[in-house]
Amino acid sequence: MASSASPDISKRKIVNGPGDYVLEDVPHLSDYIPDLPTYPNPLQDNPAYSVVKQYFVHVDDSVPQKVVVHKDGPRGIHFRRAGARQKVYFQPDDVHACIVTCGGLCPGLNTVVREIVCGLYHMYGVKKVLGIDGGYRGFYAKNTVHLNPKVVNVIHKRGGTVLGTSRGGHDTSKIVDSIQDRGINQVYIIGGDGTQRGAALIFEEIRRRGLKVSVAGIPKTIDNDIPVIDKSFGFDTAVEEAQRAINAAHVEAESFENCIGLVKLMGRYSGFIAMYATLASRDVDCCLIPESPFYLEGPGGLFEYIEKRLNEDGHMVVVIAEGAGQELLSESIQSMTDASGNKLLQDVGLWLSQRIKDYFSKQRKMLINLKYIDPTYMIRAVPSNASDNVYCTLLAQSAVHGAMAGYTGFTTGLVNGRHTYIPFNRIIEKQNKVVITDRMWARLLSSTNQPSFLSAKDVVDDKTDLEPSTPLLK
Amino acid sequence: MASSASPDISKRKIVNGPGDYVLEDVPHLSDYIPDLPTYPNPLQDNPAYSVVKQYFVHVDDSVPQKVVVHKDGPRGIHFRRAGARQKVYFQPDDVHACIVTCGGLCPGLNTVVREIVCGLYHMYGVKKVLGIDGGYRGFYAKNTVHLNPKVVNVIHKRGGTVLGTSRGGHDTSKIVDSIQDRGINQVYIIGGDGTQRGAALIFEEIRRRGLKVSVAGIPKTIDNDIPVIDKSFGFDTAVEEAQRAINAAHVEAESFENCIGLVKLMGRYSGFIAMYATLASRDVDCCLIPESPFYLEGPGGLFEYIEKRLNEDGHMVVVIAEGAGQELLSESIQSMTDASGNKLLQDVGLWLSQRIKDYFSKQRKMLINLKYIDPTYMIRAVPSNASDNVYCTLLAQSAVHGAMAGYTGFTTGLVNGRHTYIPFNRIIEKQNKVVITDRMWARLLSSTNQPSFLSAKDVVDDKTDLEPSTPLLK
Amino acid sequence: MASSASPDISKRKIVNGPGDYVLEDVPHLSDYIPDLPTYPNPLQDNPAYSVVKQYFVHVDDSVPQKVVVHKDGPRGIHFRRAGARQKVYFQPDDVHACIVTCGGLCPGLNTVVREIVCGLYHMYGVKKVLGIDGGYRGFYAKNTVHLNPKVVNVIHKRGGTVLGTSRGGHDTSKIVDSIQDRGINQVYIIGGDGTQRGAALIFEEIRRRGLKVSVAGIPKTIDNDIPVIDKSFGFDTAVEEAQRAINAAHVEAESFENCIGLVKLMGRYSGFIAMYATLASRDVDCCLIPESPFYLEGPGGLFEYIEKRLNEDGHMVVVIAEGAGQELLSESIQSMTDASGNKLLQDVGLWLSQRIKDYFSKQRKMLINLKYIDPTYMIRAVPSNASDNVYCTLLAQSAVHGAMAGYTGFTTGLVNGRHTYIPFNRIIEKQNKVVITDRMWARLLSSTNQPSFLSAKDVVDDKTDLEPSTPLLK
Amino acid sequence: MASSASPDISKRKIVNGPGDYVLEDVPHLSDYIPDLPTYPNPLQDNPAYSVVKQYFVHVDDSVPQKVVVHKDGPRGIHFRRAGARQKVYFQPDDVHACIVTCGGLCPGLNTVVREIVCGLYHMYGVKKVLGIDGGYRGFYAKNTVHLNPKVVNVIHKRGGTVLGTSRGGHDTSKIVDSIQDRGINQVYIIGGDGTQRGAALIFEEIRRRGLKVSVAGIPKTIDNDIPVIDKSFGFDTAVEEAQRAINAAHVEAESFENCIGLVKLMGRYSGFIAMYATLASRDVDCCLIPESPFYLEGPGGLFEYIEKRLNEDGHMVVVIAEGAGQELLSESIQSMTDASGNKLLQDVGLWLSQRIKDYFSKQRKMLINLKYIDPTYMIRAVPSNASDNVYCTLLAQSAVHGAMAGYTGFTTGLVNGRHTYIPFNRIIEKQNKVVITDRMWARLLSSTNQPSFLSAKDVVDDKTDLEPSTPLLK
Repeated sequence: MASSASPDISKRKIVNGPGDYVLEDVPHLSDYIPDLPTYPNPLQDNPAYSVVKQYFVHVDDSVPQKVVVHKDGPRGIHFRRAGARQKVYFQPDDVHACIVTCGGLCPGLNTVVREIVCGLYHMYGVKKVLGIDGGYRGFYAKNTVHLNPKVVNVIHKRGGTVLGTSRGGHDTSKIVDSIQDRGINQVYIIGGDGTQRGAALIFEEIRRRGLKVSVAGIPKTIDNDIPVIDKSFGFDTAVEEAQRAINAAHVEAESFENCIGLVKLMGRYSGFIAMYATLASRDVDCCLIPESPFYLEGPGGLFEYIEKRLNEDGHMVVVIAEGAGQELLSESIQSMTDASGNKLLQDVGLWLSQRIKDYFSKQRKMLINLKYIDPTYMIRAVPSNASDNVYCTLLAQSAVHGAMAGYTGFTTGLVNGRHTYIPFNRIIEKQNKVVITDRMWARLLSSTNQPSFLSAKDVVDDKTDLEPSTPLLK
Repeated sequence: MASSASPDISKRKIVNGPGDYVLEDVPHLSDYIPDLPTYPNPLQDNPAYSVVKQYFVHVDDSVPQKVVVHKDGPRGIHFRRAGARQKVYFQPDDVHACIVTCGGLCPGLNTVVREIVCGLYHMYGVKKVLGIDGGYRGFYAKNTVHLNPKVVNVIHKRGGTVLGTSRGGHDTSKIVDSIQDRGINQVYIIGGDGTQRGAALIFEEIRRRGLKVSVAGIPKTIDNDIPVIDKSFGFDTAVEEAQRAINAAHVEAESFENCIGLVKLMGRYSGFIAMYATLASRDVDCCLIPESPFYLEGPGGLFEYIEKRLNEDGHMVVVIAEGAGQELLSESIQSMTDASGNKLLQDVGLWLSQRIKDYFSKQRKMLINLKYIDPTYMIRAVPSNASDNVYCTLLAQSAVHGAMAGYTGFTTGLVNGRHTYIPFNRIIEKQNKVVITDRMWARLLSSTNQPSFLSAKDVVDDKTDLEPSTPLLK
Repeated sequence: MASSASPDISKRKIVNGPGDYVLEDVPHLSDYIPDLPTYPNPLQDNPAYSVVKQYFVHVDDSVPQKVVVHKDGPRGIHFRRAGARQKVYFQPDDVHACIVTCGGLCPGLNTVVREIVCGLYHMYGVKKVLGIDGGYRGFYAKNTVHLNPKVVNVIHKRGGTVLGTSRGGHDTSKIVDSIQDRGINQVYIIGGDGTQRGAALIFEEIRRRGLKVSVAGIPKTIDNDIPVIDKSFGFDTAVEEAQRAINAAHVEAESFENCIGLVKLMGRYSGFIAMYATLASRDVDCCLIPESPFYLEGPGGLFEYIEKRLNEDGHMVVVIAEGAGQELLSESIQSMTDASGNKLLQDVGLWLSQRIKDYFSKQRKMLINLKYIDPTYMIRAVPSNASDNVYCTLLAQSAVHGAMAGYTGFTTGLVNGRHTYIPFNRIIEKQNKVVITDRMWARLLSSTNQPSFLSAKDVVDDKTDLEPSTPLLK
Repeated sequence: MASSASPDISKRKIVNGPGDYVLEDVPHLSDYIPDLPTYPNPLQDNPAYSVVKQYFVHVDDSVPQKVVVHKDGPRGIHFRRAGARQKVYFQPDDVHACIVTCGGLCPGLNTVVREIVCGLYHMYGVKKVLGIDGGYRGFYAKNTVHLNPKVVNVIHKRGGTVLGTSRGGHDTSKIVDSIQDRGINQVYIIGGDGTQRGAALIFEEIRRRGLKVSVAGIPKTIDNDIPVIDKSFGFDTAVEEAQRAINAAHVEAESFENCIGLVKLMGRYSGFIAMYATLASRDVDCCLIPESPFYLEGPGGLFEYIEKRLNEDGHMVVVIAEGAGQELLSESIQSMTDASGNKLLQDVGLWLSQRIKDYFSKQRKMLINLKYIDPTYMIRAVPSNASDNVYCTLLAQSAVHGAMAGYTGFTTGLVNGRHTYIPFNRIIEKQNKVVITDRMWARLLSSTNQPSFLSAKDVVDDKTDLEPSTPLLK
């Protein structure tokens, strides 16, 4: 997904205040276009909003990144609060917006699309909204489709994305050419970290060309691996849907002798889905995630633990995130000279299944059953649940308010329960990961009783990472 | 549910700091029992936790109630962060805990019970945990049941509460007598605002008697009407389940001519479920909640709006919270002298159904269909979803950590995404309500296009309520 | 729904054979129109069907109504097997079909509509299909809508009926005028017994006028109260969905002391849904249906049984079909002189709730909880499940094959697992009912342990009804 | 699963009657044990049954295998109707029953176990019921578990089998020794065709030894591949659950360009689940089953069809039964000399995924997306739906009635909607298969528009198979 070019993050907007208050502000069209006219926000005349006296966000409203504080601690980094402003920088009739969805599927994509369209239309009276077909390459290689509230009316009840999506296809200058040629002046980009990196490049090129075009990102990652924000949309739905697979693994495991139910869940670099699905289910005996290296053989290893569980209970359930054990997987693959088997082995679930079967049949001469479930596509493709639907609605409306108010180069995100505007650089500079020296992972270890796969040395090494983390429901 | 006696809230523990920092602290056993011994937290020897260096909460960790801040604004009220402490005030073998569930059903009750039992057992090695049968009166009128991890192992997959529950039955001195007689020294009370008020009275009586007994509340309210906290457990599940009823109402309404689908949802004093279910569904044309008075007849009234929708679309969906329109209901009842009909009329859904039918058949001579759905018990009785399961786990563990650490007279609660200990008085002093001059209600009005039922005068009146509010997903 | 006029059933087509074989045949256009040309069935050139050598139904294929037979018993009544014929009586380009849905909602309505449209289009190349809007009255009082495979493509995933429906509105001559004026020559009528009675009248008027118009009925009744056929479409889905309500009632009942969960299910004259939902659930302690009269007070009565269950288990679940206890209900209403309460009392669920509450509070001075659930609309409005989807497909295709083959005045129906054409008179002459002296009801009594509410006398009386019955899954 | 020994089927019990009536009767204990005493059926004193006058099955009741008949056709094969008899051959106190579940999981296993236990207990007063642990080998290698109504009360709400199961382990003499040694006299065997073959061997050995032991089989096969019977329990539930996977495949396919959603469903030798899931869904473009050979390349091949669909629609959904294309798979494997890849290739879904990817990337140089879903374990492990629950109840009760009445060596089965007793030999002599020259498969071809993969020659060859077939919902 990622573009090789690196966005220029030299132009950060930082505002300082008393008590070590820091506001990491987002760019604004007026930063590089002088003398932009402003207009009263049309919401003032909207019957739904006119009675709401506190509707407009105060210009100084900000939200701290860190909410566990000490009596005399510093106030730290803050983000600008999202929401409608009293003045807007676009007249409704002049707005020509477009929406693009990129990367893999995630529950809620259609809700976000629907609510951007409906938000622009009903709140601001914007009628011209284009859908870009099939991800970034749709900007230059495909036809667009006109979107209005009627067209998107029931799409939130369907999974997937009505706009189509794809990976890659980012070509900054072709995309910005297309934006310029079509007269688009608001660009809504829904996608993961690679996509947001692309959005940052688009924003910079637009700024370079001096165009009056707002670029707003809505972070989409079913893995919850985007930093700063509390959680990504679709995550709740995914964890919910993962319960089906874990339940099935548990039923299979309990029905056969010496049976291991193995479930692979999403999470290439971050094990959040695996961790939360495990915590929610209580049927899981072992959860393996990318952040916590593990080993198979020897004392304290996975095989020893499996044998212990089978001997004690006769069955067990293992959840593995798709990115877990990649270093073990690479070793295995290198030691196998035949290429034709690689396809199989690159799937950590199939690989681990094979390793477990081999170990018990060959080394332990022990009859086991192993039932492997990969529910990935069945999880990704469901419609978002009610909670995610409301969340998507608020994300979309925040993005619309921000773009109308002239902000650009920002991602909308929930920070400590409040919607904010976050500069692109904070979203793309690193990935959100489960911190295995933190409390949530300890809760998981405690609930599964699995080994930590850590020696004393590992712990000391990890000690250097004192980042506040695991920002979901701490 | 509520006791008539009012808890004595004179002994608040307030800590002040620079920048107008205020900590509203919770009571501690050592406040009224001198020279209590402390012990190292057994978690230090727990393999799951021993590798987690940041596990213990810093003594100064606190969480602000308000996270929308200005550069030079005051820091305001904070609550003590929940979590394990390095020192505990009970030795595991000496702990004799009990758990009681009170009031109506709510998804997640069994998960909270399960996780208190498992938390005490697995984290602290506490083996003596009693279940109180059937709410407060179970303390003195019923037998108790012994709880251990095996007994509670799969209860989180069932709705309801395995302990049984009831309304009322609070008798402070009988309850505290029972606690004292049975040698109980940790009391976990799961219930709504009335129950928490009762918990406060129990705590005060225990303090008066000088007993070393920790009293911990876990707030339970499917209506989300408890103040301070972000949201109550089971709320997400309830909103999700409410979608079924709204969908059914929508299907019925679309299939018949001039058809109104009317759904009554929970919410005696607070319309959160109705509001969130409406926002999540997008199929609702009108949402009526207790906080927003409405009227039926005349310009800007409900009947006029219904007729408009039927004329334009041929159908509509109305959601009404059970506590909405109570003042209209009372008028109707008073004007009807016959007692036998009262039962019907006290249900706002049945009452409104009748009023709508009468209006259109008698006054407008217009043939309408009305389909009324009351899904209340079907919503309350489902097991909690994955998201609520994790939330309940954390609530339960927070309560356990707090009691073990000697805190008492507190409720555990999520504040801005962090688990905290909140003094009882803050939980029971008022109810959380939808603020209809706030942004979320405006979003709802915008999504339904319903009339605001407010005249200019009303708005001015409401202006005095400038409380920060609607603390869910702002 | 029913028309007051009674269809003329004097012209039955009966074919006799050896061994007391009887074929109750259906009318055919050629019965009253001489010298109708025939055409080869276009399916012969359809790639999907051309390889299927057994595809066309043999002209003599028939299905017995009774399949429990004795070695030397008579062969009895048979119905004509449904399916494609080698000759058809319409050229595809000449067909002008219409579809109407009447009466209450039932899962699967949209699937039937979809499959008639797709069956006509894909199997026979018929392009002209009209949807009649909102039931019978749509023939003369509303516009029609053009249907094609694209329009109906995804409607089977939605509940309700896209055509709209209504009760009543049957006016034979207006309807047949409209059919004649619009040049319609195939009429597909989906509805319950009243609707099928109307279809019979339409057929007779068409025959009287000598029109070349096929009238095909598809029986729709969520209550499964149509005779002859194995079961009606949507019934399985309804029983499945009813489990939710019973589960909720069970959870509520178990969580409170002396708690009765009461669920009202559909079934105005026939208790099939209540009976099957009870048998499927195993959580029900008492099932009350229209066919089995019951009484409340005294020995062997409902109140006695409720008290027994509460004393033994502390809770119970009662399922009542909406038409049960109507004679008790009438008595109650008559004794109440005030009209305003009638609305409440006409709902048997609300009435029984009140009676139970009154009895225990006033007569027994016993504190009980009663939780009443009416899931009717939530059950009716769901989309059909997979099993019903396949069933609806086959019903629709059978109807299409029959009409194309020139049959008319028939209903398609599953008889002993085979699709058949049944003359209207057999469908409308009486209702399918649970036979309470039959095995299935005994199974239910055995599973619930409820009293039979029957005295020896009753049994003798019922003995006269020796009809083969309860034709579902015997 | 299958034993190599072949059951001796020489002793068939055939009864002839007029009109070519044939009854294929089942063995009875009195066939080989003379002078067995009989007892009145205890159901006569059961309050639930005593009022049911038609409860006992008439001794001559039989059910025809073929219900599509001609006026003067022969009456053909019949089976004995299942149900309670007036006389039983066991006194309740003397009964010592056991239940075993064998083979793979199938929704409804626990319901069958529950209802055998409850049926014996509540209908006949039988108290001694053993559960055999983990399939056939549990008879001799494991402890048994005592079963009663309380133990099995809620198991029908769980997937899997509480008894445990396994494949193989059949050892006739060890099993019969164990039956004899433990004094068991009723053996209930739940399993597929291999298991029923084993049951036949057990029955014959028991008959050889002259033991008064009834052996009753309940056919379990999620694939619906058991002949004679209408459908196997759990099949409806499996088809329903398969819809989730097909929906997910459809959502994925629609969201990406040139995307193929590929779903593998159960069906080693019979494609019923794939066929019905396809017919129910309407989202499938191609359904591949074992009974219909297909080829990949060249005109009329799968690749050509895929390319056509992608060019026309941009996406497609393929469903493949696990046993489809085995001959193609074998060729592929033989041509690959490397063993390490075999594991992958033996899964037809993974194999086909790879072949499609290779073809389009290498031969057509066309960029496609392929999303492969294998929901097998997620389907098998769900609890049975309401319809299957009722079906399982009746199967279990039929088995209990049969064994109590002294029948043995039989399988209970639904034939044309009626429960019957079928001699083992009819169940195990061949497998039920989709007849691709029959109407249901034509319906499928018509609904998907897929190629038939048949040349004219194939059709002629198949013509010889004139068996009545596809007995599900014809």
